[in-house]
Amino acid sequence: MAAMEVPAHIRGLLKDPDALIAAIAQDATTHEVLMLAWMNQEALAMTIETRRATYWSRSRQEIWVKGEISGHTQSVESISLDCDADALLLQVHQIGVPCHTGAATCFHQPIEVTVQ
Amino acid sequence: MAAMEVPAHIRGLLKDPDALIAAIAQDATTHEVLMLAWMNQEALAMTIETRRATYWSRSRQEIWVKGEISGHTQSVESISLDCDADALLLQVHQIGVPCHTGAATCFHQPIEVTVQ
Repeated sequence: MAAMEVPAHIRGLLKDPDALIAAIAQDATTHEVLMLAWMNQEALAMTIETRRATYWSRSRQEIWVKGEISGHTQSVESISLDCDADALLLQVHQIGVPCHTGAATCFHQPIEVTVQ
Repeated sequence: MAAMEVPAHIRGLLKDPDALIAAIAQDATTHEVLMLAWMNQEALAMTIETRRATYWSRSRQEIWVKGEISGHTQSVESISLDCDADALLLQVHQIGVPCHTGAATCFHQPIEVTVQ
């Protein structure tokens, strides 16, 4: 697959187009926060173009089309950039489950806070 | 203020207790994703202890008690760790607004996706 660049007008919005960008996937229907992953500019360009959530795998150091192997894809309804221009929020329709553990969200380990 | 460490049983959960952890703040009532910020272990310990969202400011390189100056604090209802143990989701009650721009969410810049 040929490398893609984000369109110039979007590159211009990003704080650092060559840095990794944190990307939050939120379920567009239930509003549950599903996962946090990372995008480089190629992953962002592919996500914009295909509307299929595509990340950069930091562990494998490669483009990661979410669900390409598992079938658990994310169809992207919308993308928003934050005020610092270094984080993205994706509204997605999740096919199957987002988490490799089979959980309905990657955020499934509660941390106890002090009772007040 | 004396430096705090996260409790040992929570340190044991984290992928790397000495690394920065991405922290997503979600409105516990509206479920809107408000912002993404960073915590070091001291910020996490303070958040757990005080139930007031406390981050690590990467730009100022210091502990940032959210709203300490503006009054726009976040009262933390719950915290969840993700499956990779390197990102946190906070359910918060936002006083005022989360964004320094005055917006109701930091994610207020839409990025156009391809129409299909």
